[in-house]
Amino acid sequence: MSDDEIDAIRALLNAKPRPVGWAQRRERIDEVGSIWPVASDVTLTPVDVDGVPGEWSIAPGGDAARVLLYFHGGGYCSGSLQSHRRLVTEAGRAAQARTLAVAYRLAPEHPFPAALDDVWAAWRFLRNQGFAAERICVGGDSAGGGLAASLINRLRDAGEDLPACSWLISPWTDLTMSGETLAAKDAADPLIHKTYLMELADAYLPAGMSRADPRISPLYADLEGFPPTLIQVGSAETLLADSTRFAAALGGADASVTLEIWPHMIHAWPMWNAHLTEGRQALAKAGAFLRALL
Amino acid sequence: MSDDEIDAIRALLNAKPRPVGWAQRRERIDEVGSIWPVASDVTLTPVDVDGVPGEWSIAPGGDAARVLLYFHGGGYCSGSLQSHRRLVTEAGRAAQARTLAVAYRLAPEHPFPAALDDVWAAWRFLRNQGFAAERICVGGDSAGGGLAASLINRLRDAGEDLPACSWLISPWTDLTMSGETLAAKDAADPLIHKTYLMELADAYLPAGMSRADPRISPLYADLEGFPPTLIQVGSAETLLADSTRFAAALGGADASVTLEIWPHMIHAWPMWNAHLTEGRQALAKAGAFLRALL
Repeated sequence: MSDDEIDAIRALLNAKPRPVGWAQRRERIDEVGSIWPVASDVTLTPVDVDGVPGEWSIAPGGDAARVLLYFHGGGYCSGSLQSHRRLVTEAGRAAQARTLAVAYRLAPEHPFPAALDDVWAAWRFLRNQGFAAERICVGGDSAGGGLAASLINRLRDAGEDLPACSWLISPWTDLTMSGETLAAKDAADPLIHKTYLMELADAYLPAGMSRADPRISPLYADLEGFPPTLIQVGSAETLLADSTRFAAALGGADASVTLEIWPHMIHAWPMWNAHLTEGRQALAKAGAFLRALL
Repeated sequence: MSDDEIDAIRALLNAKPRPVGWAQRRERIDEVGSIWPVASDVTLTPVDVDGVPGEWSIAPGGDAARVLLYFHGGGYCSGSLQSHRRLVTEAGRAAQARTLAVAYRLAPEHPFPAALDDVWAAWRFLRNQGFAAERICVGGDSAGGGLAASLINRLRDAGEDLPACSWLISPWTDLTMSGETLAAKDAADPLIHKTYLMELADAYLPAGMSRADPRISPLYADLEGFPPTLIQVGSAETLLADSTRFAAALGGADASVTLEIWPHMIHAWPMWNAHLTEGRQALAKAGAFLRALL
């Protein structure tokens, strides 16, 4: 048990008043996400992903022919290459693959479909660079997990090849906010509450678009043909039911699913892998999953 | 893909008319469960488990200090040491542990709580033999999976030590039959249909007992303190939602859960491991889970 470690992360997250407004929120996620720097043996390379800022990473022993294409979380309104660099690079190490992180456009300045268009561009970029679809895993946390699922659905609808697998950490799959853990886990979750999610959804959705639209709420999408998927979620999360219900929906569509529920872990806890045993353990599990499928 | 293999198993299961009545059902499950014999290198030893017939097994390389205590499926009305011998012995091999299978009393001759009393007796037997609780995994398929969960809840309520972990294949967790996959997967499932489950529940329940009683429907139980649990279920199962909802309930209680949904697999498919690649793969995954926790 490492209750002390997760309690220390909670204390860190609660050390300052909650940020107000988009600019403050973006600063805060960049700040807390980069408290622990990237390991010194990781090679980082900026890349222009057909107009979208991106970043390659590879750790020693990584196979450059296999790619984790990763979309950061932040509710479609915050998050960056910086905020998630430690998470993405250590995931690449665990997977023995290179990673491509993508700074897709954010709401409210850029509502749907800007983010989805940008990750679609990143997928096309990788394919045009010669990477085989079956050597790509599409992954993400929180809103980035929802975006990963939405990209896969868009690829399938367009008749494109699909990635080998998908890896979703604490994904936000239901923008209608109908999950029962929004209430049941509200007191346990230090980060994500329903009023905040409502604000994010309002920012991301163009006027007139339904929150149940399957392009933003993959829980309601046709999931036919979805590739093998690993979902990792904490038990101390208001979004727990977004994972359990998405796993059930994938099973309904005959997908191969592994759902891991990690006791006492908080939203997107592998972010804090530098000082959280369960963060490293979750990345090790994800790495084994990717190595088996890529 | 081994669609041919699962199709062959389906053909085998459908080769004869559906059995009618308890005696015919018991014969049929014993017959189909023992088509493929136990491997010749497995040592089987009958044992009187304080009045309940039981059977030890161990394969070469197994650690005799670690035990998989296993409860067969069959809707509380059929199933036996014979029907599940191939499954249990190969699970023990994968786990590098010995197994103790238990022929608990069956309904309708012996309704609740006979089965639960018998598996409780088996647990006491193991503890009295000197096995540490943290060296025991409690497992089962279908009704046996529900029984495993109910035993754990009863142990917790009695203040007893709990097993190291739990392994549930296609568990039947909700005798109210409220899972939505009972309808959604009815056409895909060759074995389990709602009318049959209703008949089984009527046989197992004493007069006046609610189907939502947490001692027979662990989905509705207090799951506080439940040990780490692996749930394996097929996507071609009417009982899929009994697994996805139980995983969600365990997460609600802060348990460590791994839920695996196996595409196109049918109810309790590891039974057919001798001629089904995914049966062996599922046992290998379960074996790794048990080795890590026992």
